[in-house]
Amino acid sequence: MTSTKKAVVLLSGGLDSATALALASDQGYECHALSFDYGQRHNAELEASCRVATSLNAVEHRIITLDLTWIGGSALTDTRISVPETRTEGIPITYVPARNTIFLAYALAWSEVLCGNDIFIGVNAVDYSGYPDCRPEYIATFQQMARLATRSGVEGGRIKIHTPLIHMSKAEIIKTGYALGVDFALTVSCYQADVKGRACGVCDSCFYRKEGFLAAGVADPTLYQD
Amino acid sequence: MTSTKKAVVLLSGGLDSATALALASDQGYECHALSFDYGQRHNAELEASCRVATSLNAVEHRIITLDLTWIGGSALTDTRISVPETRTEGIPITYVPARNTIFLAYALAWSEVLCGNDIFIGVNAVDYSGYPDCRPEYIATFQQMARLATRSGVEGGRIKIHTPLIHMSKAEIIKTGYALGVDFALTVSCYQADVKGRACGVCDSCFYRKEGFLAAGVADPTLYQD
Repeated sequence: MTSTKKAVVLLSGGLDSATALALASDQGYECHALSFDYGQRHNAELEASCRVATSLNAVEHRIITLDLTWIGGSALTDTRISVPETRTEGIPITYVPARNTIFLAYALAWSEVLCGNDIFIGVNAVDYSGYPDCRPEYIATFQQMARLATRSGVEGGRIKIHTPLIHMSKAEIIKTGYALGVDFALTVSCYQADVKGRACGVCDSCFYRKEGFLAAGVADPTLYQD
Repeated sequence: MTSTKKAVVLLSGGLDSATALALASDQGYECHALSFDYGQRHNAELEASCRVATSLNAVEHRIITLDLTWIGGSALTDTRISVPETRTEGIPITYVPARNTIFLAYALAWSEVLCGNDIFIGVNAVDYSGYPDCRPEYIATFQQMARLATRSGVEGGRIKIHTPLIHMSKAEIIKTGYALGVDFALTVSCYQADVKGRACGVCDSCFYRKEGFLAAGVADPTLYQD
């Protein structure tokens, strides 16, 4: 008999969320992958999310279209703001206002309808310490709110927001995913990948990815632009 | 000099959120009204929200299209589930999974970009006690989460989720709105209003509205279907 533990797994197409999906699957969850088309510049990520969902045997993969461009305020959704080519201090300009809250709210809605209690998100507080909504205290409070927000919570369900990568370095994430058979060649992390999914090699996200493969001693399968 | 206190006000087109908007405006906020087209059956509400935003001088009114129909699980978004014609015990079938969490997440994102710290939502825990996401403890925890989620929160901003109606009876809401000049004839509360915005007169929402006008001693301007 197969497991009926259901998890909604947020899947961006990058290597972190691919590893989170592999971990959820390894823990016996039936995985329902959820991605968002939110007008992000790096649309190559969405194509990557489809490849990753298939390769890691998600039972279902939904892509929700959200219009966040009207909100603006981030280099990822506002074309008037450039993606910086150097790492920044404080809250990065690539931070999208309330993005993880919106993503987790949708995951919560879907989880409720699926009668699941488990949501996986590949946030990381080590490399992304500048993002308010990647911190453990944020996740803990979202979980508390989720238990009050829903039918399941009221009826005693213990909704859990799983963040298995939150304290890992990029190298640890890569080693973990590698051990679980994640094909990182399918993933795209770059904030400004080209239409073929090739990475710029210079943005924050490329920097951490490149360093991570080096530190993990795993061959980097990333395709870079010239 | 005009006030620059900015509030995002969730506006459904019903009488509760119209009163919440009137209260925010009365408190000196520059009001940015936010409505959602989420495939709800009662689309007449959205037209009402436009009339209400204009009549109560919101400086801006945005309608965000969300697809919640794929989530299903509610009589308001799933056409296979009927809107009940009698009041129900427990969590009503008109409850939409995680709806207020999704709505508040968008309000939070907009508020952050506007550099505001105030969000108004017309939830009510008296008549809608069956909805998990209308309870004071839910709102308090959302607020706590919001302060951790955002740039403003990290930088010391005190994001506040205002719920001025949460403990009011429908009659008190009506009296409050009436005193502030809300034109209730512009509002639509019915879960299954017809294309002209005329109310069914039998759903939960119609029941509470009708009783409210009676108890408030205010003439009921609602147009009913035959």
